[in-house]
Amino acid sequence: MSFPVPTYTSRLDTVARLLDEQGLDAAVLTPGADLRFLLDSDIDTHERFTALVVTPADRHVVVPAVDAAALRDGVAGAAGVRVVPWTDGEDPLALLELPAGATVAVSAAMTADHLLALQARGVGTRNATTVLREVFMVKDAVEIAELTRAGHAIDAVHRRVPGLLRPGRTEREVAEELTTMILAEHVTVDFVIVGSGPHGADPHHSFSDRVLADGDVVVVDIGGTLDSGYHSDCTRTYVLGTPSGEQRDAYTVLRDAQAAGRAAARPGITAGDLDGVVRRVIDDAGYGEYFTHRTGHGIGVSGHEEPFIIAGDDTVLAEGMAFSIEPGIYVPGRWGARIEDIVVLTGDGCVPLNTTTHDLVAAEVAR
Amino acid sequence: MSFPVPTYTSRLDTVARLLDEQGLDAAVLTPGADLRFLLDSDIDTHERFTALVVTPADRHVVVPAVDAAALRDGVAGAAGVRVVPWTDGEDPLALLELPAGATVAVSAAMTADHLLALQARGVGTRNATTVLREVFMVKDAVEIAELTRAGHAIDAVHRRVPGLLRPGRTEREVAEELTTMILAEHVTVDFVIVGSGPHGADPHHSFSDRVLADGDVVVVDIGGTLDSGYHSDCTRTYVLGTPSGEQRDAYTVLRDAQAAGRAAARPGITAGDLDGVVRRVIDDAGYGEYFTHRTGHGIGVSGHEEPFIIAGDDTVLAEGMAFSIEPGIYVPGRWGARIEDIVVLTGDGCVPLNTTTHDLVAAEVAR
Repeated sequence: MSFPVPTYTSRLDTVARLLDEQGLDAAVLTPGADLRFLLDSDIDTHERFTALVVTPADRHVVVPAVDAAALRDGVAGAAGVRVVPWTDGEDPLALLELPAGATVAVSAAMTADHLLALQARGVGTRNATTVLREVFMVKDAVEIAELTRAGHAIDAVHRRVPGLLRPGRTEREVAEELTTMILAEHVTVDFVIVGSGPHGADPHHSFSDRVLADGDVVVVDIGGTLDSGYHSDCTRTYVLGTPSGEQRDAYTVLRDAQAAGRAAARPGITAGDLDGVVRRVIDDAGYGEYFTHRTGHGIGVSGHEEPFIIAGDDTVLAEGMAFSIEPGIYVPGRWGARIEDIVVLTGDGCVPLNTTTHDLVAAEVAR
Repeated sequence: MSFPVPTYTSRLDTVARLLDEQGLDAAVLTPGADLRFLLDSDIDTHERFTALVVTPADRHVVVPAVDAAALRDGVAGAAGVRVVPWTDGEDPLALLELPAGATVAVSAAMTADHLLALQARGVGTRNATTVLREVFMVKDAVEIAELTRAGHAIDAVHRRVPGLLRPGRTEREVAEELTTMILAEHVTVDFVIVGSGPHGADPHHSFSDRVLADGDVVVVDIGGTLDSGYHSDCTRTYVLGTPSGEQRDAYTVLRDAQAAGRAAARPGITAGDLDGVVRRVIDDAGYGEYFTHRTGHGIGVSGHEEPFIIAGDDTVLAEGMAFSIEPGIYVPGRWGARIEDIVVLTGDGCVPLNTTTHDLVAAEVAR
């Protein structure tokens, strides 16, 4: 169990309270982040239906019989959540115990086959994110401790990156070593991006057989998951040898923009305004067309979750929220750079959970 | 590209025809098996919305701008499917180009956040499986060739299993070697089950630190994905040394049940009746309570898809369908066994794609 049982019962109680406040009859929550958060379970029953049902008065999990033991032996059993098994050929939706005409909150990750089947029974459905967002977005002390641990874990990998980058190696070779290093600090690898030279201009490049060359700017964006289910995510940009004047200038703008984001991140600002603070620095320096994505995303038991730091979003940020601040500058076909920290909001500002240098770090080219 | 472009245009044409026949305005299909099947794309844009829109008259993909190039450079570009990018802060649902009051078929794997947003705009939604099942379930020649290749790939691994099992090794050590072997024959490992002794009685056990001992019966269920996206999946059961009389007897029943399934699998039988044929052999021998799951599942670009070979299912099986026949006998807390082949239906029977022996294979215990 990642945390003591009362951590989970308290979360379940909060969900029940929020359902009640919003006039919903139940939450019907499927595997993924929601069950990790509420039951410490990473159960995956594929196309077979599994759901935790929370009502103000009761909690039970409907689960394929072959997977029931894993729940009984975990938080569900310890927290008094009833485990209701079903076997192939039975109808699991009949076990949800919903009143006629119920309106329920469903996991954002519930798949359409199950959601449409639920709706076909006359169940009203709402996105549970509106119910869960308060309890998901605002991290408590144990969660902040886990995210801090995750930050340390990925920082330890980034500190070793300069030793991995040298002309003649491929992105793939670097990525394979990074995979091993991430696994030494986490239980799973979420993603590995090694974007060298022109590949750095594609924010969603992963890695390729491209051979690193002297003068390459290299974006390294890596993340993993701890045994507790909490994620790390950190980007730094490196250079093999000496950057060009243009690269140096643009990188300084990027570093200033990211720093402006950290300085502005505090309770009370909206997600959209925070995005604007970061974007303005880049716009004002004339690189606006090269910053092609949102400023950041929340993180916790999901790698990407609310709040999203994005233009037009009026979510008011609050103490305990954890999210990335990750502007980038991408010059198509030539090179790119990104700097990403996870930060947690405190009473009057934010604490970055990633602490390696924000400089453009030079890897040695002569070996 | 896994197959020539006309393979994909033909599939898209079939979807358009089926939509028309069923009176639907469009299909809105999200990443996963559907886009692998129709665009040869394994794109994963996480919470950012991506969808292929197919109408009788048009096809386009709405995709985050940062991921657009991957589609343009692949089947979508080659097959004349328009790529419509959106950037953070824009509303991707506004790009679907659906007529007012449209009713559309959505991917079974579409997540609730997107589906509820679509419904909130007044779009009627149906499970696309009802539209796609014909084109998904019935495999054409190129697909059968890929599934055959996948069968050979996993059989090559199973042939090496007897050399991996010996007293003193842990399930985990065996699983790690299997992972390497599967990767040598596939591009990804889907799952590795090494269920020794009492763990064999849990059909969804993966592997553990349990140490193998003389006399253990060991269930090995493994699968991977080829570069084309097609899956393998095969189970064999092994014994370290000599099985008990009870194990020998039960295993013979299991082998007969699986063989009865292969003999009965032919066009015209329903999925439910085929499940019954297999189950009856086990029931009649008195082991019925120990066969706790369905007989099988379809396979293709998904590891599990229709048809499901399950009690009560009235799907009529047809030539070209590919699915598993995988009965098991699980004696709780003691031991278990399962035999699984993928089969493809021919005009008058079926061809198994897994061809290693169905015997209880003895691994050598003295080394």
